[in-house]
Amino acid sequence: MIKSFASDNWAGACPEVMQALIDANQGHSPAYGDDPHTTEAKQEFKKVFGQNAEVYFVYNGTAANIITLASNSQSFNSIICSSHAHINVDECGAGEKFAGTKLLDLPNTDGKLTPELILPHVKADRYPHQSVPGIISITQATELGTLYTVSEIKAIADLAHKYNLILHVDGARISNAAVALNCTMKEMITDTGVDVLSFGGTKNGLMFGEAVVFLKPELAKYFELYRKQGMQLASKMRFISAQFIAFLRNGVWEKNARHANEMAQYLGSKMAAIPEIKISQKIETNGIWAIIPKPLAEKMQKAQFFYPWEESKDEYRIMTAFDTSKEEIDQFIKAILD
Amino acid sequence: MIKSFASDNWAGACPEVMQALIDANQGHSPAYGDDPHTTEAKQEFKKVFGQNAEVYFVYNGTAANIITLASNSQSFNSIICSSHAHINVDECGAGEKFAGTKLLDLPNTDGKLTPELILPHVKADRYPHQSVPGIISITQATELGTLYTVSEIKAIADLAHKYNLILHVDGARISNAAVALNCTMKEMITDTGVDVLSFGGTKNGLMFGEAVVFLKPELAKYFELYRKQGMQLASKMRFISAQFIAFLRNGVWEKNARHANEMAQYLGSKMAAIPEIKISQKIETNGIWAIIPKPLAEKMQKAQFFYPWEESKDEYRIMTAFDTSKEEIDQFIKAILD
Amino acid sequence: MIKSFASDNWAGACPEVMQALIDANQGHSPAYGDDPHTTEAKQEFKKVFGQNAEVYFVYNGTAANIITLASNSQSFNSIICSSHAHINVDECGAGEKFAGTKLLDLPNTDGKLTPELILPHVKADRYPHQSVPGIISITQATELGTLYTVSEIKAIADLAHKYNLILHVDGARISNAAVALNCTMKEMITDTGVDVLSFGGTKNGLMFGEAVVFLKPELAKYFELYRKQGMQLASKMRFISAQFIAFLRNGVWEKNARHANEMAQYLGSKMAAIPEIKISQKIETNGIWAIIPKPLAEKMQKAQFFYPWEESKDEYRIMTAFDTSKEEIDQFIKAILD
Amino acid sequence: MIKSFASDNWAGACPEVMQALIDANQGHSPAYGDDPHTTEAKQEFKKVFGQNAEVYFVYNGTAANIITLASNSQSFNSIICSSHAHINVDECGAGEKFAGTKLLDLPNTDGKLTPELILPHVKADRYPHQSVPGIISITQATELGTLYTVSEIKAIADLAHKYNLILHVDGARISNAAVALNCTMKEMITDTGVDVLSFGGTKNGLMFGEAVVFLKPELAKYFELYRKQGMQLASKMRFISAQFIAFLRNGVWEKNARHANEMAQYLGSKMAAIPEIKISQKIETNGIWAIIPKPLAEKMQKAQFFYPWEESKDEYRIMTAFDTSKEEIDQFIKAILD
Repeated sequence: MIKSFASDNWAGACPEVMQALIDANQGHSPAYGDDPHTTEAKQEFKKVFGQNAEVYFVYNGTAANIITLASNSQSFNSIICSSHAHINVDECGAGEKFAGTKLLDLPNTDGKLTPELILPHVKADRYPHQSVPGIISITQATELGTLYTVSEIKAIADLAHKYNLILHVDGARISNAAVALNCTMKEMITDTGVDVLSFGGTKNGLMFGEAVVFLKPELAKYFELYRKQGMQLASKMRFISAQFIAFLRNGVWEKNARHANEMAQYLGSKMAAIPEIKISQKIETNGIWAIIPKPLAEKMQKAQFFYPWEESKDEYRIMTAFDTSKEEIDQFIKAILD
Repeated sequence: MIKSFASDNWAGACPEVMQALIDANQGHSPAYGDDPHTTEAKQEFKKVFGQNAEVYFVYNGTAANIITLASNSQSFNSIICSSHAHINVDECGAGEKFAGTKLLDLPNTDGKLTPELILPHVKADRYPHQSVPGIISITQATELGTLYTVSEIKAIADLAHKYNLILHVDGARISNAAVALNCTMKEMITDTGVDVLSFGGTKNGLMFGEAVVFLKPELAKYFELYRKQGMQLASKMRFISAQFIAFLRNGVWEKNARHANEMAQYLGSKMAAIPEIKISQKIETNGIWAIIPKPLAEKMQKAQFFYPWEESKDEYRIMTAFDTSKEEIDQFIKAILD
Repeated sequence: MIKSFASDNWAGACPEVMQALIDANQGHSPAYGDDPHTTEAKQEFKKVFGQNAEVYFVYNGTAANIITLASNSQSFNSIICSSHAHINVDECGAGEKFAGTKLLDLPNTDGKLTPELILPHVKADRYPHQSVPGIISITQATELGTLYTVSEIKAIADLAHKYNLILHVDGARISNAAVALNCTMKEMITDTGVDVLSFGGTKNGLMFGEAVVFLKPELAKYFELYRKQGMQLASKMRFISAQFIAFLRNGVWEKNARHANEMAQYLGSKMAAIPEIKISQKIETNGIWAIIPKPLAEKMQKAQFFYPWEESKDEYRIMTAFDTSKEEIDQFIKAILD
Repeated sequence: MIKSFASDNWAGACPEVMQALIDANQGHSPAYGDDPHTTEAKQEFKKVFGQNAEVYFVYNGTAANIITLASNSQSFNSIICSSHAHINVDECGAGEKFAGTKLLDLPNTDGKLTPELILPHVKADRYPHQSVPGIISITQATELGTLYTVSEIKAIADLAHKYNLILHVDGARISNAAVALNCTMKEMITDTGVDVLSFGGTKNGLMFGEAVVFLKPELAKYFELYRKQGMQLASKMRFISAQFIAFLRNGVWEKNARHANEMAQYLGSKMAAIPEIKISQKIETNGIWAIIPKPLAEKMQKAQFFYPWEESKDEYRIMTAFDTSKEEIDQFIKAILD
């Protein structure tokens, strides 16, 4: 049985999710979301995010992000985001293609935007020559494993709303963030004023499926039509919904994320103790960024595979998942030190 | 346990597919298709369609169609299709949006294109004012449950190639067609000269997932990039691939499709015996189109739900699936006749 | 000096327009429409269409149509139009590309839509699978030279508004229509409830330039941004505006159109008197559609060039322009009859 | 008669161009570019750029850039450009919308890219997650009035071709560049290996119209169809072509550009002599960038209007044009010093 530190999406489905899929596979159920599982899953989301939350399911994270952005922008808009944002560097131009918008990516070193970084860009100076900012998109936890605090999110939401912008959160690893911040989803997202959230499932134990959570229901007005036109309307939707029910109920999301985060701390502390290794980003969730001399890195990759992050800097990314075990980590460290 | 005649996508996953998902859920596996299941699934497709077949997986049928079309056209092209085509009436303009192309839909009464219908449209008369035909897309089995014979497909393929057009087949129900025609997939698709096929899984017993089968590998050149940009690259792809392995091996696709087709014949013959009901399309695969007086239709829908097709004509569509049983049909007919 | 009956856009600029260009070429003037000519031209349009008219200039008719449609639709919308519509057959898929929308083209024989033709299409039956009708676009005068009466336009506008659709008029030859109907622009467009008009200039004596006239100013909200993104913001806009001032003032548009229409009547009556020729559309504006035996047609084309319309039917289109003279027509007829 | 230093596109048409328009306005001429003027204009371009040059006309510079890029890229490509590039900041997202591509804008302080800046971006590391570089686009003269030397262009062309990228030059002010570099267009563009050039007319004395010059004819394959779909096919094209004939013949382009450049040198030297003013970019063509204390700037703007460039830095842009006179400059300086 292969294991790795390559990515949390190399893991499979967690047991509770797999069982939910088995259980949901009974008889017929209305297609395209008109089924009881989907109704129930939406209720579970309301319990987590509040009664205003309007929830829709898609197949993957890229779609959650892009269809949300497209359905809430005009093509002349720009989307303000971090230069490291998944929408900027890992979606092959899906945003530009499907929304027609410019991505206004702001350079930074820790994956985080700040009001100071954003402020000079909230308004288009030269109407109608410049794309008009429409949405701010931040990622929580960031693509560098770092975190926005609750008050940092609130500050960006306030700025967004002051300038009539929408705040979108790419939450591919939102569960890891909530656990790390020791707060509820509602405190982190609903109460800070986030307008819409891509709620990640696949990286935290789902087989497939992500949710889009609108905290301002009026922003969901066109979502279903853009989702269909965006090729993301699942016919047998109950199989996404059933996973989310299992995920939200009984705290599976939290259990999985907490475990992955703890394993990152555990592995990170072991790695930090190795003199040749330099941890390069604060370990806040389930990823470790580290500068590792090439020979050592190759030895480590032979023990358990993981990806280089920025090769020119000898920087690597090591990810833990809901199913990473202490034993694996111990064996991995042992292999390194041999 | 609800059953219905609403659609084959109201059914769940067939047992072999469900078991394959359970079996595939072991440990870690490389993401995005670099996993052993995906390699193996592609081999299974080569066994079915020939060694030239290049296969890629996506989440659903709309994506299989649209990403194929987009990755093999320029936006100034038009796509020639039937007015009933799924891409024309059931994908909310995904083709126009994602490929930027015009859909040149040709009216017909049985869901089928013919060389005669197509011929006047194979060339753009007024360069550069008119969209330039680039692709012919036909559906097998059609959206009206009818079938192209093998030689009809060949005739359209020959016409396409004579005018440097690509022939795409939307095969959402391709298995039902192969069974009904009593031919192999290779005879129907590869040997007739079809260039690329959307191979349906979900409507015939998969939980989710469709395959795009390129019979001319050079047409696959850009597919992976358009798939990513089209938001359809599955991270945990092994779970699509594993389903297809189970589906193709041991003839599950055939068993499922044959059963659904037989149930349609069985139900169709019972319905045809009811004087008020008029079967309106030839029953060739797993759907029955029928004119039914409204009061009777309502009584029938109460027994087992199904959809109106064209309300102004009192036409309805009744679909069978891999899991439709004779008993259900008997009960349904009994309920009608009561 | 070549003349022809090929198209009204083979003609040049009429003398008043040319003089206006010469006069406007004095010194510097603010770019992008912030110039006095543009302000003045907009006022001239208000005099013609009423004080609510909001007017914007673009380079050509395709742009006038497409940017108007794009700035007033979502990509999941469909645009209802005639199968003969310029946006459907002569803009190389610009609508599909730039607006992302489906064109729902309705077959007809005289270039005209009717409430009866439109009614079955005003609502999408199967949300969210089908493109949602957003705009009805008609052409006045039509691409077949025919006309909507004022009350026919009103009937379509009423239908549009009943179903919350926008009515757009492609008025590439709107001046010819107004003259033929013997009504004011305001009676034909503003008072019937048309929402937005592409007002043609180039085919009636301008060098280049078309106007978009919004009768409901709120529909113009995003136009300037879509125009810029649509590559149609003229830097030296005064040169479009100056042409329109000359065109609207002193009735140049009317004089030019009336002359072209009269020449079509004159030529049409001469042609109708030739036994081999069969006039195939009612001559209402400045075009003549006629069935002509091929040998005769070739003889005629040698005398003065004109285009075949539908070659399979031996149908041809003969266009007159603001500068067509009776002498040319007499010579042409003489050459035919020789 | 208003004059200004706002922009070279506040100027009108130069006398030779205006006369060419008057002369071209004789009788009928085939539409859409099948006219003798267009044939002749294309020949003039071949004289300037070499016999391989394939030339097409569009209305404006944004279109010249974007249609060129779109017709030579796939939507999954990225376009490498300067952060200051017109396509990046002044076209309202036209590239993202019409080509569907990502703009990969590289920060710099003088408007220029270098091989060193470009090299890290020529390949997409993470196929298929990242947009794949397809085109490098540079601007000559740059948006900051600076220049690439001939050998600098060659170096970028060599880099582009080494990595199978296309080199596009946005030449909105290419004439000013050629004059400043004291070289021929052929030396600067054809001989350096540039693949395609947007050749500017409007900013140097045309009324409207830009040319796209393909130095590799095979890259022009789809241009005419993308131009039509891009709403940029001029029906009365002779009026663009005639301007370009006058512009290229008898060295009008050179005379106009040389004059504008000289006026910038003259004005720049006067401004440089004013102690409060700090020239902030090298004056190489027809623009002056300068840091000016706000009160002085306002006094100057009252004398002759010009635009702020970056307000936070008190930086302004002063442009000269083909019709700027020494007298105006002297008066302007006098007014400042009063």
